[in-house]
Amino acid sequence: MAKQGVLAVVSGFSGAGKGTVMKALMEKYDNYSLSISATTRDPRPGEEHGREYFFVSEAEFERMIASDALIEYTRYVNHYYGTPRAYVESQMAEGRDVILEIEIQGALNIRKKFPEAVLIFVVPPTIEELKRRLLGRGTETPEVIEKRLKRAYEESDGMELYDYIVVNDTVDECVERLHGIICAQHEKTAVNGELIARMKKELKEMTEQ
Amino acid sequence: MAKQGVLAVVSGFSGAGKGTVMKALMEKYDNYSLSISATTRDPRPGEEHGREYFFVSEAEFERMIASDALIEYTRYVNHYYGTPRAYVESQMAEGRDVILEIEIQGALNIRKKFPEAVLIFVVPPTIEELKRRLLGRGTETPEVIEKRLKRAYEESDGMELYDYIVVNDTVDECVERLHGIICAQHEKTAVNGELIARMKKELKEMTEQ
Repeated sequence: MAKQGVLAVVSGFSGAGKGTVMKALMEKYDNYSLSISATTRDPRPGEEHGREYFFVSEAEFERMIASDALIEYTRYVNHYYGTPRAYVESQMAEGRDVILEIEIQGALNIRKKFPEAVLIFVVPPTIEELKRRLLGRGTETPEVIEKRLKRAYEESDGMELYDYIVVNDTVDECVERLHGIICAQHEKTAVNGELIARMKKELKEMTEQ
Repeated sequence: MAKQGVLAVVSGFSGAGKGTVMKALMEKYDNYSLSISATTRDPRPGEEHGREYFFVSEAEFERMIASDALIEYTRYVNHYYGTPRAYVESQMAEGRDVILEIEIQGALNIRKKFPEAVLIFVVPPTIEELKRRLLGRGTETPEVIEKRLKRAYEESDGMELYDYIVVNDTVDECVERLHGIICAQHEKTAVNGELIARMKKELKEMTEQ
């Protein structure tokens, strides 16, 4: 049986470039499975069911809650967001490292249920740069940008709750840092209980011979 | 000013191949400084003062203790072993990652004084392989090998106290794993307090404009 994969939660300010980094990470390395969240909010233009989110009705979401089909869920601005259990657990069991790109409340819910999960927060090099990136998209009104910065300010309160803070200066470097952190997680003592037990047993047998 | 370097403690069973791995790590990457311990035990054939250890007298060692010149020390089989402070602190301040190759008691002393230090335990793939490596040296008597295996058995009790367990299957892979773990340490939230404080301050200023 393959060794269980790592569960990695990636959060970060809107505009920090998480999406681009995730895409590059998936393209470069083949050990990752990206979990897709379920939500009751409407799809935005360009979003696809099963790609950005599973878009489900309120009733459907509540059925998922009731049948324990979500490993975590949260309600934010009148909508549900949650992580379907089946995909995450099957991928991890196959030894694949699963990435959840979710918000802070979801991240903290994951921490409670999966103490071995690694929580990573992606930040831009500076807030000036964050604003530049938000402006650079050219698609958002000043009001929306202001709202995102305010939201980032609120979110910054939770940064200390993450295990790692990764600066997204260049996509390539950020990808390498994320990959390095997640790989290192496989060597954590807490996930190597079997190896430790086997070593102790073998040493005991050998010294008793 | 350079960001503070990481303090990494590397321990492992005698025969796990730590020495070879450390040498390869130092040769491959230039961000590391290897701390040299002080000891009151006699040099073994082939050991050099200032390379394997600083060999000092009992009186000298006790002067080092008294003047707080050691960041940790321990007594083992009638001899002192300790880590000189000056080198470790100056290298870390320059942003270099410092490696201490020390035994478990020393490792636990470091943990108390440097909670941000990362503790890594290197193991062979199997105990059979450990025995093979010890035998393969061809320099040790069966009694010495037996003593080393007994010592490994005692040491295995402390494995859970380390942060990471790294298997030394091949030197190259082991080097990469160690390097990955130590690099990831730079992104730990606990060592990025300044970055977090700066982000929060910048976000506050920007949203208050």
